[in-house]
Amino acid sequence: MNAPIQHIVLIGAGNMATILGRSLQAVGIHVVQVYNRTISSAMVLAKELSCKYTDRLDSLDTEADLYLLCVSDQAIQGLVPELAYLEDKLIAHTSGATPGSVFKEHFSRYGVFYPLQSLSKSQEIDLSQVPFCVDAGLASDLHKLEKLAQQLSQKVFKINDEQRSLLHVAAVFVNNFSNHLYALMDEWLKEEDIPFDLLRPLILGGALKVQDLSPRAAQTGPAIRADQDTIARHLEILQEKRPDLIELYKNFTLSINPDLAQNKIT
Amino acid sequence: MNAPIQHIVLIGAGNMATILGRSLQAVGIHVVQVYNRTISSAMVLAKELSCKYTDRLDSLDTEADLYLLCVSDQAIQGLVPELAYLEDKLIAHTSGATPGSVFKEHFSRYGVFYPLQSLSKSQEIDLSQVPFCVDAGLASDLHKLEKLAQQLSQKVFKINDEQRSLLHVAAVFVNNFSNHLYALMDEWLKEEDIPFDLLRPLILGGALKVQDLSPRAAQTGPAIRADQDTIARHLEILQEKRPDLIELYKNFTLSINPDLAQNKIT
Repeated sequence: MNAPIQHIVLIGAGNMATILGRSLQAVGIHVVQVYNRTISSAMVLAKELSCKYTDRLDSLDTEADLYLLCVSDQAIQGLVPELAYLEDKLIAHTSGATPGSVFKEHFSRYGVFYPLQSLSKSQEIDLSQVPFCVDAGLASDLHKLEKLAQQLSQKVFKINDEQRSLLHVAAVFVNNFSNHLYALMDEWLKEEDIPFDLLRPLILGGALKVQDLSPRAAQTGPAIRADQDTIARHLEILQEKRPDLIELYKNFTLSINPDLAQNKIT
Repeated sequence: MNAPIQHIVLIGAGNMATILGRSLQAVGIHVVQVYNRTISSAMVLAKELSCKYTDRLDSLDTEADLYLLCVSDQAIQGLVPELAYLEDKLIAHTSGATPGSVFKEHFSRYGVFYPLQSLSKSQEIDLSQVPFCVDAGLASDLHKLEKLAQQLSQKVFKINDEQRSLLHVAAVFVNNFSNHLYALMDEWLKEEDIPFDLLRPLILGGALKVQDLSPRAAQTGPAIRADQDTIARHLEILQEKRPDLIELYKNFTLSINPDLAQNKIT
């Protein structure tokens, strides 16, 4: 029961399956089979990993130590009943947004194995710095999943369903929303024939700064220092060039420094 | 007239003056004097740079090739008339938010020398990747400032007052506002006893991604893929935990994917 996980079936062949598959093989774990509903995708990954592949959910290798669901949140629910024949095996998904309890009705041994990073199979990624959030129904399975994650990453956290669901929301704010700020500015600078390259080092510098500092300590700019002259000038520029962005500018400015609400930045 | 800039007086002794002073000396430019209204700050930097220092604006070395104003936006206006006795000398400021024409009334030779990065003297910084935005009233002075910037950085751009003022607004969006998103999440995760460390690699990964890709191409998450189940779940979590953040979540989600406005994310 406490033997480490050594043989894994990957369910899915997208970004998550590809990156985990490569990284697991690299530390000596055997990916024994890849399932994908599109056989050609299963084949591509299986070839890279030198293992079997299938597009039939009822034909999975039944001797593996772990069945790792690397599919979209929407697909998980539908797959679980079809995998019920593996009922005494350990199954885990890799999703931030789905509770571990999704397996409860059909499996006695289940968990979560969620790397908190935006993964793309076309990019080389070093998982050693990626936080892994693991959880399991049984303490013995949690231990196994933790050991497995520790072979891939230095940052392994036991995170329960509720914490993981909050983290998933927080990841949207820090990653998707800040990226959208970059996209808005890219679009604007294009209109003005100013290269976005001018902002790239600033973006990277900002992200590097909060690797050590708390974000609040790293905050700079006119809002935090209550520099109303600069804020007024910025609002004039936006009024002339991009009035659609004024609301966003004001909301952030007031959220950064609520004291400014008393003054006339409106 | 076309001799390169070799001797500089730094006006100011804060982050900007310190980082530029160190970097200029490192490439063989002489900082001959540091002015600061607080003599002790002038002394600290002058000691590091092995040069003269003063707290008297009327006692600047009159033989320098460039007088570089490294002071706050608010301070520039007030200093210019006091420096009018240097009228035939080249003067430049390092501000993103102030037009070069601030010097026009008192100086015939003026320019801007603006490194677009958030600088902090306590951090080691490699200026070679920092974009420098330079401008000048005369072509010969522009050439000198460009040459000087090229000694420090591989990324030198001629940027006029209007472009620079837009860039300054854009810098607030990509740097200050995204940092505030990090701060909001740091604060929330603290309330929930979840370490912010879990999000740090994601933040860095997001910034690295847009160093090559366009931000729009780098966009991921439930909004861009119109994943309404996940968006609905996120809104439920926010409703329960942080209803004050719902507006921000909805605004970003609709801005990322305006098609969602037809549907019921409200």
